[in-house]
Amino acid sequence: MDKPTIPKGTRDFGPEKMVRRNFILGTIRDVFELYGFQPLETPALEQLSVLTGKYGDEGDQLIFKVLNSGDFLSEPRTKQVPLETTDAKKLTPFISEKALRYDLTVPFARYVAMNQGALTFPFRRYQMQPVWRADRPQKGRYREFIQCDADTVGTDSLLCEAEYMLMMQEVMLRLGIVDYTILLNHRTILSGLAESVGLQGQESAFCTALDKLDKIGVEGVCAELTRLGLEESKSLALLHYLNAYRSLDDFVKQYQNQKAIVQGASDLKEIIQWTEKGGGDVSKISFDATLARGLGYYTGPIFEIRLGGVTIGSVSGGGRYNNLTGLFGVHGIPGVGFSFGVDRLYDAMDALGLFDQLTLQVAKVLVCSLSVASRAYALKVSSAFRKEDIATELYPDDVRLKKQLQYAEKRSIPFVALIGETEENTSTVTMKHLVTGTQETVTIQQAIQQLQSTIL
Amino acid sequence: MDKPTIPKGTRDFGPEKMVRRNFILGTIRDVFELYGFQPLETPALEQLSVLTGKYGDEGDQLIFKVLNSGDFLSEPRTKQVPLETTDAKKLTPFISEKALRYDLTVPFARYVAMNQGALTFPFRRYQMQPVWRADRPQKGRYREFIQCDADTVGTDSLLCEAEYMLMMQEVMLRLGIVDYTILLNHRTILSGLAESVGLQGQESAFCTALDKLDKIGVEGVCAELTRLGLEESKSLALLHYLNAYRSLDDFVKQYQNQKAIVQGASDLKEIIQWTEKGGGDVSKISFDATLARGLGYYTGPIFEIRLGGVTIGSVSGGGRYNNLTGLFGVHGIPGVGFSFGVDRLYDAMDALGLFDQLTLQVAKVLVCSLSVASRAYALKVSSAFRKEDIATELYPDDVRLKKQLQYAEKRSIPFVALIGETEENTSTVTMKHLVTGTQETVTIQQAIQQLQSTIL
Repeated sequence: MDKPTIPKGTRDFGPEKMVRRNFILGTIRDVFELYGFQPLETPALEQLSVLTGKYGDEGDQLIFKVLNSGDFLSEPRTKQVPLETTDAKKLTPFISEKALRYDLTVPFARYVAMNQGALTFPFRRYQMQPVWRADRPQKGRYREFIQCDADTVGTDSLLCEAEYMLMMQEVMLRLGIVDYTILLNHRTILSGLAESVGLQGQESAFCTALDKLDKIGVEGVCAELTRLGLEESKSLALLHYLNAYRSLDDFVKQYQNQKAIVQGASDLKEIIQWTEKGGGDVSKISFDATLARGLGYYTGPIFEIRLGGVTIGSVSGGGRYNNLTGLFGVHGIPGVGFSFGVDRLYDAMDALGLFDQLTLQVAKVLVCSLSVASRAYALKVSSAFRKEDIATELYPDDVRLKKQLQYAEKRSIPFVALIGETEENTSTVTMKHLVTGTQETVTIQQAIQQLQSTIL
Repeated sequence: MDKPTIPKGTRDFGPEKMVRRNFILGTIRDVFELYGFQPLETPALEQLSVLTGKYGDEGDQLIFKVLNSGDFLSEPRTKQVPLETTDAKKLTPFISEKALRYDLTVPFARYVAMNQGALTFPFRRYQMQPVWRADRPQKGRYREFIQCDADTVGTDSLLCEAEYMLMMQEVMLRLGIVDYTILLNHRTILSGLAESVGLQGQESAFCTALDKLDKIGVEGVCAELTRLGLEESKSLALLHYLNAYRSLDDFVKQYQNQKAIVQGASDLKEIIQWTEKGGGDVSKISFDATLARGLGYYTGPIFEIRLGGVTIGSVSGGGRYNNLTGLFGVHGIPGVGFSFGVDRLYDAMDALGLFDQLTLQVAKVLVCSLSVASRAYALKVSSAFRKEDIATELYPDDVRLKKQLQYAEKRSIPFVALIGETEENTSTVTMKHLVTGTQETVTIQQAIQQLQSTIL
């Protein structure tokens, strides 16, 4: 039999990795709840029609489609779809009704659209679940990965953005990540820039080009802008300027006659002022006129966390949208949302050595019986420990003590409780501390106290 | 635009349901960790070849297959599979390499087989993740649902089974479920029974028939046994007896010359005695010679929790296997495992009213600003509360106070903190308790103390 494998771009998470992941997820969850966000979970399977068309053509290709169960060929055959000549893309809707969710934003919009009557607005929800993308797997890019989203819908107050700045800073603080920058921009600033160089009506293509600055550099973006019809000299001047301004104020001075830019900048200033009022560290927030964020539904402020010291890219990003649920025919619900990429945070923290202090989650004590006859008493002692909420493992097999001790050492369990005839007859237990090597026969109650007073 | 829907047999879990689910999941996790089990997560996507053939023909049909991404027709076309005439089942392996996991047991066996060199045995892992089955959706049966498994591999000690009995009882206790029975049987007892009526070599079919007793009754099972070649009078006599014995001892007396039954019964007695030693309530454990558990890989003791007072059926079950990883060519690793069905537990607890005391997880306080000018100070107060780990919501919009108070009431947030010019000028906050209606202007520090001393 072939050795089994797992699909490319997916991973198993054994105990050590789970402790780290749970630390990240728990930290993010705690902060979300601290800010009043409520949990939501949606199914992994969505109707394919709910997802299609929401992520652009490229996104549609990357959605994992689920084959209809049973005789999936009966529908195309009934509808006389010529199987030999139809291409895969056209055949898909006939043999696949369901798909794996691609992000948490579209399912959230679907949920709000389906439940708007029952929800109290402003509605704040957080959601921490895996998503699936048929991307080419590579370092830091997986086909199954967890997103942690927090969205606030039913309000257009910029206080929300300020709270998001504070939340991002609180999560970074709790995770121990010191070297990061929150990049901030505004969609209307991008529109204003496009307008200022005569690219009205092409804002979206302009953003897409600008978004690639990190990847393809000034020359590459310049070429794309030229393709949009901009003179090369103007492109170069623009990109040169975008590299040269020193601050938001400095930037606005240059565009004082561009209403959109002035308005966008005023929003950003308000966010920054409020963040400062809320106790945030505004020195970590940096205006970046080239930040574009790919997604089409953003309409207001947009933001992103970039880490220093590691080549991981963005670990979190989001922005304001004025009509997300419009995707499902429900209009007039503006909001703002953002998402943490747990897998990138994991990789970054690993590279930065931030997991070094995390101890593996293990039982505090291994109960070892010295003979078959002692096992019942060993189980009794285990139960007494567990009754006091002490995580306890009972070694199940009748093997030499040496092997049991080796097991405890391999598993990093700090204490062993030795149980033999003597202990049973005197209702005691011999506690051995594996790090110090000390050993002492005590009552069960004393053993409990010893275990409770030891911090792992 | 059509109103969006979610696939049949799947569900959204809004805040209220999430609190309940998290209570169940958290309880199970706590008990698993108390017994020294370590967390594992495997990907939702498995290679189809890893899953196929592990759940019987019917199971294979119920696995959700994922369409290969990109041009999924290129492989069958290259291999000259005649698309017009091939049936769906035969075409599947050409267009689908991956599938959604069907349970947590096979992925666990796959994980152990892939990582055996790196694991310390006995290896105890727990896993709480969704699984997917293309079953016909009906009350209490979903297409996407969560399983919570705990397995111990690398040991054949019956101490493990006793610990499982104790764990199941601890979970039931913590969930508040009082009326339940743990049914216990042994695969060798079932083999012995089959042998005793001359059905050697047909143990598996015998078990399958017996397993249906609840569903199709004595007559139905009798008909199935007759089909296996058993005389009707013998079938009736057997089924009559299986309904009539009073205890395990009583049962064994009848089969004293059946070695397999005597050995199986001796195992069960050992488990029950140990459970009692460990402080378990053995009056809740009941030997049931008709308990069969469908799955083929069980070879030793098997068990199941049945609830009283609700028609939910089994909410948990498991058993011993001697060669689970043999599915992947790795032999000699015996073990025992079981699984809680969270969705059935949820439905049962809901029917029993056990969620009534659970309060919705909400912020403790809503900070309301009385004017636009007060918002910065409102954010400052919110930050002060959050710094003390008090879950706080800030009302983001500039609306009349009445509307803000209505929001707090709808959301069941117990306190509002009113922020106006007076409060800002005096560095105070007016705290209003929505249940009692009391209102008092206090310092921020006093407000924090008030909030901290109130239990939700």
